[in-house]
Amino acid sequence: MRAALVVIALFLMAPPAMAVDVQKVVSKSGLEAWLVEDHANPIISLHFAFRGGAALDPDGKEGVADMTASTLDEGAGDMDSQAFQGRLDGSAITLSFKAGHDAITGRVETLTATRDQAFELLHLALTAPRFDQEPVSRIRDQILAALRVSMEDPSKIAGRKLMAVLFPGHPYGRPVEGTPESISAVTIEDIRAFAKGRLARDNLVIGAVGDITPDELSRIIESTFGGLPAKAAPWEIPQTRPASDGRTVVIAKPVPQSAVSFAQQGLKRNDADFYAAFIINHVLGGGGFGSRLFSEVRDKRGLAYSIHSYLYPLDAAALVSGSAGTANAAVAETLRLVREEWRKMAEQGISEKELADTKTYLTGSFPLRFSSSQHIASILVSMQLDSLGIDYLNKRNSYIEAVTLEDANRVARSLLKPETLTMVVVGEPKGLTDNK
Amino acid sequence: MRAALVVIALFLMAPPAMAVDVQKVVSKSGLEAWLVEDHANPIISLHFAFRGGAALDPDGKEGVADMTASTLDEGAGDMDSQAFQGRLDGSAITLSFKAGHDAITGRVETLTATRDQAFELLHLALTAPRFDQEPVSRIRDQILAALRVSMEDPSKIAGRKLMAVLFPGHPYGRPVEGTPESISAVTIEDIRAFAKGRLARDNLVIGAVGDITPDELSRIIESTFGGLPAKAAPWEIPQTRPASDGRTVVIAKPVPQSAVSFAQQGLKRNDADFYAAFIINHVLGGGGFGSRLFSEVRDKRGLAYSIHSYLYPLDAAALVSGSAGTANAAVAETLRLVREEWRKMAEQGISEKELADTKTYLTGSFPLRFSSSQHIASILVSMQLDSLGIDYLNKRNSYIEAVTLEDANRVARSLLKPETLTMVVVGEPKGLTDNK
Repeated sequence: MRAALVVIALFLMAPPAMAVDVQKVVSKSGLEAWLVEDHANPIISLHFAFRGGAALDPDGKEGVADMTASTLDEGAGDMDSQAFQGRLDGSAITLSFKAGHDAITGRVETLTATRDQAFELLHLALTAPRFDQEPVSRIRDQILAALRVSMEDPSKIAGRKLMAVLFPGHPYGRPVEGTPESISAVTIEDIRAFAKGRLARDNLVIGAVGDITPDELSRIIESTFGGLPAKAAPWEIPQTRPASDGRTVVIAKPVPQSAVSFAQQGLKRNDADFYAAFIINHVLGGGGFGSRLFSEVRDKRGLAYSIHSYLYPLDAAALVSGSAGTANAAVAETLRLVREEWRKMAEQGISEKELADTKTYLTGSFPLRFSSSQHIASILVSMQLDSLGIDYLNKRNSYIEAVTLEDANRVARSLLKPETLTMVVVGEPKGLTDNK
Repeated sequence: MRAALVVIALFLMAPPAMAVDVQKVVSKSGLEAWLVEDHANPIISLHFAFRGGAALDPDGKEGVADMTASTLDEGAGDMDSQAFQGRLDGSAITLSFKAGHDAITGRVETLTATRDQAFELLHLALTAPRFDQEPVSRIRDQILAALRVSMEDPSKIAGRKLMAVLFPGHPYGRPVEGTPESISAVTIEDIRAFAKGRLARDNLVIGAVGDITPDELSRIIESTFGGLPAKAAPWEIPQTRPASDGRTVVIAKPVPQSAVSFAQQGLKRNDADFYAAFIINHVLGGGGFGSRLFSEVRDKRGLAYSIHSYLYPLDAAALVSGSAGTANAAVAETLRLVREEWRKMAEQGISEKELADTKTYLTGSFPLRFSSSQHIASILVSMQLDSLGIDYLNKRNSYIEAVTLEDANRVARSLLKPETLTMVVVGEPKGLTDNK
């Protein structure tokens, strides 16, 4: 190989100025949607979210938000599940709902030609869902089957246990998909009550991308969502901090490779230091092969098969979290190195060069998120859920550019506390036991 | 619900005239690529395929094509796996390879700004792959772990067994991913030899979509692929017909729900009757909720959780295949109904209305395949592998429109032979045993 080829500079060219035009569309009754018009193909993606998700599941009924999301499209109006799904299918319309901790999200993908049918079906699902016995039983069985599989998956066990340890007695400590017991306890009345309380106009955000004009979208959001109640049931998730006190929890499972999940207190999406933390985390463990964790743990020592970290801001709490997959014999040393890199970052911060490289990467790779209309529609919804402002897409890179080395290292110092890292290990880690 | 809403006509509007401009680009030395220019985002997708895939695995070394594809991007030139993956990762470049029965396919997704780096890395992977001991061992372990999981999955067991029963002694009867034994037998020399024999210019097709001009693409395909050998190692896969003789094979596995796979002789992609068969299959079991199999087996009787059929043309054989998931108690009745619908279709064909509805659906939903640049790039490669012609995208709907009721029913009669359907059941089906 010619030597010159090895010197592959990243993003040598300035990222092209990308002006994404997001329009605010307001309907007759005041419903709002954000729109990116794109008439290149006769396709429309409409994504939306109702604030308030699985964290609002009643105690003992964990999983009801998830079951509600999974059964909303299983029959509506005078159409049973078969008839309703048949309509979607016959017109090649995608309609689906999903529950997260903080919101119920939904999406419609349709051809322009079947636009009105698609939104009428969505309208029915939202305003006249049936929750018939047959689909509810069937979906419950499917969720139970998926739960059985995930309860054998070391990394999923570790992730669930980590949240339970970090948030005892708080809704975030409970799994979105529930447990076999709680899922079995959920009744059709629970589902009906959950949908009734959550699907409303005041907790709704909407993003649309594709072959539709602002006028058409205005009319459609009115006819689709205008019939919902004005207000969702009152809700509040207590703000909380994770109980991260440096504990290591070991769950014994006979597998050759241990799954590790770890976390400490993080910062919220609207924190003024979010972008500094974003950069710090990229250098620490977010930047894939280039990150310090990857370099120290996998590249130099070959201890782990995978290792990474990420910021995980929720509405009522925030984490810096991470995970690793490692041979049982290497778990203890891997955990030691994670804490060590955490400490080094807190004490010494990052270098001018790391800052510059990370900025170049994060700003340069941003356009990759715009490779399909579904991705863009989903971003438009997140922007609204996170109150990022309608001009966010065009300003986002400037927020990253604005982070100084001083900002970054100040945030590293104040944020990262290796002695607080809570770790969950699932496997047969050698020489490692619960430490508290 | 207002009654008028129930009358949801499908695709009432004529599908918009969609002229996708595919350009033929030829490099200095005569390499050819098909290109859809799209400068809306600074992103380029380049997909490609080398004809000749896992069907060429040497006996006892099944899985070598798959392992070759999985290790091609694990180090090249003077970069080991870490360094090579680090370059990709640091520039947010996606590069991956995959093996199928008939081809090794690959794809690059890159920002315009990192285009030259991306294609230089692809060039190195193709012309100077390293196949070092570490990544080969690691990938082998990953494939073995995935195999262990899939060997517990009833539908995957059924699918693999069906191919083994249909194609005994023929390469198509062997799994692309190999077996634990064959994977363990594959050496680095086997991988090296496979890559050397397969990666050449005369069996290569290329499709590109995105922010690149024909001149730039011409230069890039020359520098990327021009250094490959002119000719692949000679290869031939014997043309064959599936041994489908009406056999039912039962594999006992203690699960509440049986997985069923079935197939009979099909027709090749270049068969003059392909579009008629495509329509027939859509009505029979390809059209999701609207299909006859779905309607009879699931909708009216609730026997199966899922059921569908599809055309499966390969280079050297062809199937009409299908699958179902059904409670153990309902398997026998489900299989009976599949044969019954098969027979009805062969004897009575489809109606004028079914023909018209299917044409409207298949032509109207076609634009949904164009929702991302990756999808389009992948279609451009398939078009070339299947010799469909550069104007296929704009002609495809006319091929479907041209099918007459007489064509459709003639093909139903000649193609569908319920007595030949071979079926594999994995589970604990009640009252069902091997019938041969």
